[in-house]
Amino acid sequence: MSKVLVIGCGNVGSVGLHKMAQHPKTFSEIHMVGRTIKKCENVRDSIKEKTNGKVNLQIHPGNVRDNAFFSELIKKIQPALIINFGSTYDDLVVMDACLEHNVNYIDTACYEDPEKYGFSYELQLAKNEEFQKKNLLAIVGAGFDPGVTNIFSAYARDYLFDSIDTIDILDCNGGSKNEEIKFAPNFDPEMNLRELILPIKFWKDGAWQKRGRLIDEDAVFFDFDFPETGVFTPYLMYHEELETIPTHIPELKRARFWMTFSKSYLTYLRILYEVGLVRIDTIDYNGTAVIPVRFLKMLLPKAEDFNKTYIGKTNIGNIISGTKDGKKKVIYIYNVCDHAEAFKETGGNAVGYTAAVPAVVCAKLMLEGQWHGTGVKNAEDKLLDSKIFLEELAKNGLGWSVQTLKDLPEALKKDY
Amino acid sequence: MSKVLVIGCGNVGSVGLHKMAQHPKTFSEIHMVGRTIKKCENVRDSIKEKTNGKVNLQIHPGNVRDNAFFSELIKKIQPALIINFGSTYDDLVVMDACLEHNVNYIDTACYEDPEKYGFSYELQLAKNEEFQKKNLLAIVGAGFDPGVTNIFSAYARDYLFDSIDTIDILDCNGGSKNEEIKFAPNFDPEMNLRELILPIKFWKDGAWQKRGRLIDEDAVFFDFDFPETGVFTPYLMYHEELETIPTHIPELKRARFWMTFSKSYLTYLRILYEVGLVRIDTIDYNGTAVIPVRFLKMLLPKAEDFNKTYIGKTNIGNIISGTKDGKKKVIYIYNVCDHAEAFKETGGNAVGYTAAVPAVVCAKLMLEGQWHGTGVKNAEDKLLDSKIFLEELAKNGLGWSVQTLKDLPEALKKDY
Repeated sequence: MSKVLVIGCGNVGSVGLHKMAQHPKTFSEIHMVGRTIKKCENVRDSIKEKTNGKVNLQIHPGNVRDNAFFSELIKKIQPALIINFGSTYDDLVVMDACLEHNVNYIDTACYEDPEKYGFSYELQLAKNEEFQKKNLLAIVGAGFDPGVTNIFSAYARDYLFDSIDTIDILDCNGGSKNEEIKFAPNFDPEMNLRELILPIKFWKDGAWQKRGRLIDEDAVFFDFDFPETGVFTPYLMYHEELETIPTHIPELKRARFWMTFSKSYLTYLRILYEVGLVRIDTIDYNGTAVIPVRFLKMLLPKAEDFNKTYIGKTNIGNIISGTKDGKKKVIYIYNVCDHAEAFKETGGNAVGYTAAVPAVVCAKLMLEGQWHGTGVKNAEDKLLDSKIFLEELAKNGLGWSVQTLKDLPEALKKDY
Repeated sequence: MSKVLVIGCGNVGSVGLHKMAQHPKTFSEIHMVGRTIKKCENVRDSIKEKTNGKVNLQIHPGNVRDNAFFSELIKKIQPALIINFGSTYDDLVVMDACLEHNVNYIDTACYEDPEKYGFSYELQLAKNEEFQKKNLLAIVGAGFDPGVTNIFSAYARDYLFDSIDTIDILDCNGGSKNEEIKFAPNFDPEMNLRELILPIKFWKDGAWQKRGRLIDEDAVFFDFDFPETGVFTPYLMYHEELETIPTHIPELKRARFWMTFSKSYLTYLRILYEVGLVRIDTIDYNGTAVIPVRFLKMLLPKAEDFNKTYIGKTNIGNIISGTKDGKKKVIYIYNVCDHAEAFKETGGNAVGYTAAVPAVVCAKLMLEGQWHGTGVKNAEDKLLDSKIFLEELAKNGLGWSVQTLKDLPEALKKDY
């Protein structure tokens, strides 16, 4: 029996709220705060209908960056936990509010500074001692990737291997939107485009190796047949997980992240970048400061424009090599999620579903006392048992498989 | 000895002003009105330097759409002629001001309504009787294309053929910008992009034939070796000339317009169009109405960003087939213009040079009494002798050649 306060009710938040509503014993009182009241009401109404009127979310319209409003709201509700499905720009202010009002915290993606490209857990992890002192737990980056991919790594470390050599995380969106949708990023276009133009790096022998950018002509890619999903083309890129996994698996020799794109998608990305539409500085438009990437976001299709007809699957997982009982071992641990099924259950697509459900599972384990501890933790922290998480995850719509491979796929043997 | 008032001092206006300054006897007093005073001052200073201080333009900062200001300015200056190198959106208001204050008028491109895609001379030609009544002459669309390409057609009609069957206008920009410039439209990006996404049509046997759009996968193109310029790829499109040439050459069986593009250029165009960046409606950006194509224009490189290192040539001309003295005849009449030479002479590139110089030649012929008449005329009007125009054009930096061809090029024999 716990009160939770949820921030954000977009494609991710909406799924999270639907999923929480399926566990009324754990999430006995769900409050939501969002800037767009209509979106909040739609989610509330959908949940009311799906639970036959049993679950009634409480909506609090407002902006968490409005400190007076947000502080007052937390005081009034006194939640046990705040789950932040909102903008990663707000991660730090929400964590500070948690510290001020003694509330536990979960988010699904790493903090970003709106005025700089790039992301890092550094400023969030710097609050570790403060959370410990207050006997509070914050789990940061608890979506799918980052999140479950970190926990897949922890599970391999703690249950499947004696020692891990390499981790390759493969994120495949094998979905097909209707033909009128020419270009739509997988999630919030502003956050997604900021991420996709970053310099690429991967972890190798204790240091970062740089490898150009996704939009370069010599970007590194290979074709791969994803189980239950099909053949797609993963490209080497940098992603949140890579920042923290090497800390938690110190013997790791190499860690990389790959995401699938079509040639067409990367052409859009390159052209929008080259024209200046991924810029985050301001342009003077007849006296108004306009940020190009935010203006672009307004032109691009929203999840609600294509979710209804979105078909196909996502497949996200880790190919991990190492040693067990003195023998070489290679495994592939992954989840497959279906866009149409996710939509039917929650109104979100598989990208939203895979990002939101893990955070809800974290919240459930935390509120039920199965995960405990204090401080600011990444999902692969030894403190948080990976096995009970993965068992609970499977019960909540995100099943996973472990395949033992004879060897690393040829393309992953190379260093690039 | 005439006073002229010039509107606009961008890439086209700047060239026109430099060229006028070379004829101080004809253009004895040059006034310019522009919204960006810095641009006007740069042009004035450049001309002062190039004429050893002999020509001193008079700058009048302001907007011609500000009726009180513009009316007062015309009354004060009492020009014999207004040359409009400014936005085509302003063509009608400037023509109305000419009628009100008894001033002759020249522009380089057809009127466009900012709130609608497309262009037409209709509303300008509708002022014909009013100009006639006031004993004034207005020449509309007197750049290169439209403009010289219309006059090439008139010259063929009046001097080279007894009867014309087909006209294919070929506009090739064979220029190379420096490598950092990934995408820059040939002229004002807003006007250029609006034009390039229009439905394509051409004139055939007395009716318009439609042929999709430039951004379609099945756009019609062929490779062509342009004299002195090189092999480039002209694509079928719709252009201003096509609206009026059939009126002035009634026996014409087919009239088409072709412009060269690289595959890369068309990919940019298609993607910017598909993302919505060529839209002309308004988007609400945090309470400010932003027009996508105008915002895009602010991000794209300006002529001043690449003119200094712009090399290569433009080649614009007409391939015309018909009959002379009972025999089939095919000619190719064209001009070649060099970007670097145009820049050296005027600070503008060949696109600006070819657009501006013809209007200055029209103005010269008009002010010197070699072209006379009243009403609103297109450049191919029988009233305006094409031969004296083309002779004067050659003396002003835009030489032209006539080649007799054995036959139409294979690609132009087809109807598509």
